[in-house]
Amino acid sequence: MKKFTIILAALCIGLSAHAQQALFGGPGVESPVINADGTVTFRYQAPKAVKVEVTGDFMPMEKREVEFNGQKMTFEAPGVGVLKEGKNGVWEYTTPFVVAPEMYTYTFRVDGLTTIDPNNVFVNRDIASLTSVLLVPKAGERSDLYAIHRVPHGSVSKVWYHSDMAGFDRRLTVYTPAGYENGKGKYPVLYVLHGIGGDEDAWVTQGRATQILDNLIARGEAKPMIVVFTNGNISQEAAPLETSTGYDRPTMQLPQTMEGSFETSFPEVVKFIDSHYRTIAKKQSRAICGLSMGGFHTLYITLNNPNLFNYSGMFSAAIGTGSEQTAAHKEIYEDVDGKLARYFAAKPALLWIGIGKTDFLIQSNNEFRAKLDAAGYPYTYMETEGGHIWKNWRIYLTEFVPLIFK
Amino acid sequence: MKKFTIILAALCIGLSAHAQQALFGGPGVESPVINADGTVTFRYQAPKAVKVEVTGDFMPMEKREVEFNGQKMTFEAPGVGVLKEGKNGVWEYTTPFVVAPEMYTYTFRVDGLTTIDPNNVFVNRDIASLTSVLLVPKAGERSDLYAIHRVPHGSVSKVWYHSDMAGFDRRLTVYTPAGYENGKGKYPVLYVLHGIGGDEDAWVTQGRATQILDNLIARGEAKPMIVVFTNGNISQEAAPLETSTGYDRPTMQLPQTMEGSFETSFPEVVKFIDSHYRTIAKKQSRAICGLSMGGFHTLYITLNNPNLFNYSGMFSAAIGTGSEQTAAHKEIYEDVDGKLARYFAAKPALLWIGIGKTDFLIQSNNEFRAKLDAAGYPYTYMETEGGHIWKNWRIYLTEFVPLIFK
Repeated sequence: MKKFTIILAALCIGLSAHAQQALFGGPGVESPVINADGTVTFRYQAPKAVKVEVTGDFMPMEKREVEFNGQKMTFEAPGVGVLKEGKNGVWEYTTPFVVAPEMYTYTFRVDGLTTIDPNNVFVNRDIASLTSVLLVPKAGERSDLYAIHRVPHGSVSKVWYHSDMAGFDRRLTVYTPAGYENGKGKYPVLYVLHGIGGDEDAWVTQGRATQILDNLIARGEAKPMIVVFTNGNISQEAAPLETSTGYDRPTMQLPQTMEGSFETSFPEVVKFIDSHYRTIAKKQSRAICGLSMGGFHTLYITLNNPNLFNYSGMFSAAIGTGSEQTAAHKEIYEDVDGKLARYFAAKPALLWIGIGKTDFLIQSNNEFRAKLDAAGYPYTYMETEGGHIWKNWRIYLTEFVPLIFK
Repeated sequence: MKKFTIILAALCIGLSAHAQQALFGGPGVESPVINADGTVTFRYQAPKAVKVEVTGDFMPMEKREVEFNGQKMTFEAPGVGVLKEGKNGVWEYTTPFVVAPEMYTYTFRVDGLTTIDPNNVFVNRDIASLTSVLLVPKAGERSDLYAIHRVPHGSVSKVWYHSDMAGFDRRLTVYTPAGYENGKGKYPVLYVLHGIGGDEDAWVTQGRATQILDNLIARGEAKPMIVVFTNGNISQEAAPLETSTGYDRPTMQLPQTMEGSFETSFPEVVKFIDSHYRTIAKKQSRAICGLSMGGFHTLYITLNNPNLFNYSGMFSAAIGTGSEQTAAHKEIYEDVDGKLARYFAAKPALLWIGIGKTDFLIQSNNEFRAKLDAAGYPYTYMETEGGHIWKNWRIYLTEFVPLIFK
């Protein structure tokens, strides 16, 4: 066995000589640790650091003020935990509270510089930012849907379709439910749209959408369905480093995000899916939902194609931003009243609206709901705590999916 | 537009309040930058740091000595570049040499602590270590195969199969070539195996295998084929955070890695693929290859199933480690001479062996080749510069794939 151990050591060195610390550092620093009492301990080894803090959406929210373009804005942000230095330069912080079952992201701030947790390989990218992931599942709680269980798993595929609007091939993420590959049955399709700056990866990484689908289907709480995660930035081929353009840094200031191109071209995605997968290709078996910019896209794709979707979900929809007024494809955003009338005349099964109480978009969503109320158009509404955050979008997906294709 | 800008700002804040630095930091720090003259500049913002270094496999190799379990070992490791502090606490290092076209990984060392590049969202996980990615493609060079081009793209899927050996469902990565989904044709299948500590993600992230396949097929240099990336750690369901066991830290000391279980159970993977995909289910249309532990697996899966694979590739194969002697499934490793005789009697089209000149496994590979030579068994051999590194494994894949299914 000794020979094998030496070989193993040599393998380690060979594989990642410049990163061997994490492999060779003895027992290493464990972080994060979910403690038996429900608190969470974070550790960071930095013998020379002066100050080490941790922050993330597991911390209670605090009000803060920032100035942006000369305007003062108040917003809520997570609080900060201060780590204390122990032996061997290992800093530590244990939450003075039980961390509720949920999926969180967090970062350390070491002498003012933000960094991920080097002892946690579970990292999400949120647009241009990397954050470490803390998943606290608990049986019986909603967050249990975000964990992987020993249930039949669907397949998650990165697939390319040709977009005539874009003029190039673009990437989609496609979930096919367990049993799809070796079966012959046809399935309904849910289209799920991301927010500004996001891409076709976002719902699968931060949204835990494929775990949610696996678990809801396994429990019998959702119908087996194909789920398609689009890239709503029509100027992009795909997520960063998956494109022919190389080192594009992810940004929220992409061209052609909320100016009608994506909405106009959306039927080409539906056509691709219906021609490449065993779908039930009719309105009764099609649903669409999206968060923030994706909620905005969902609204206008639905209104401009009143016979395409039977179920539509607007999650913290970015309506009322004024972007429609300078749109390249203005026609997508015109005659909303007429389009609403034709959409509801076609008797959709569900228009679902969800938003957080402190979301900065709640006013525009309230105005939109007032318009629906005044016309007597039916919809389902859910208001949650908190703001414009992934926690809410995961909740909305778990609420929306069981309601569709019944 | 002003309203939209404010909304955009609010979106940023809402999305990642604890990581806003990367979104709001003005023009930000650009790193890495591939300069016109072929050098590369790395930058790191750390106003309070005393020393900032960068290292990675783009640097020339240096000899170093380490002590492990009381034994002194000499190994090669990449050199270190020292950054100089400029204004605003931005440290900078430009290579004094042209960085050859290739895919590299790198990390910073800030006052002794290893960290990824916070301005580069392109991160690979190598077992338990995160490293930043530097891709330097160049038309006409091999590294151009690692870049994404506007060619037809295959689909990359995460798929689960049931393993009777493991007793649970396990995850595979499956590449289906462009045209598979909406066609009816049958395809040959290549199985690609990772090294110790790796998983079903490794070849797709660090190996750039799906880009290599897309590009070789588009050039007409490889046949369209299905490619299956297995997880060779039979005790695992899947890559970290994709399993029901939660926060398992990746490790090279997993049980059941090189003791015969994976090799014994491999036919269940082939059976699953043949029953779920449109494969040409015969020896002439099956190939297998693997790196390090995966090369070891490749050898024994091939020898124990002499009529399963027509093409086998051993990349820096971890043979001669002695692990066979304590194996749970000893029979897999017994009677190598007899198995070799039966394997070659069945006239395989290709046994391909590749290894680096300074690989610590070259001696055991030389011994194995001497055995083949003595018996007059044919094989193809490639020796490259360097050691036990991903650069070589990508090269071997680009060499092996054009030779199969001819």
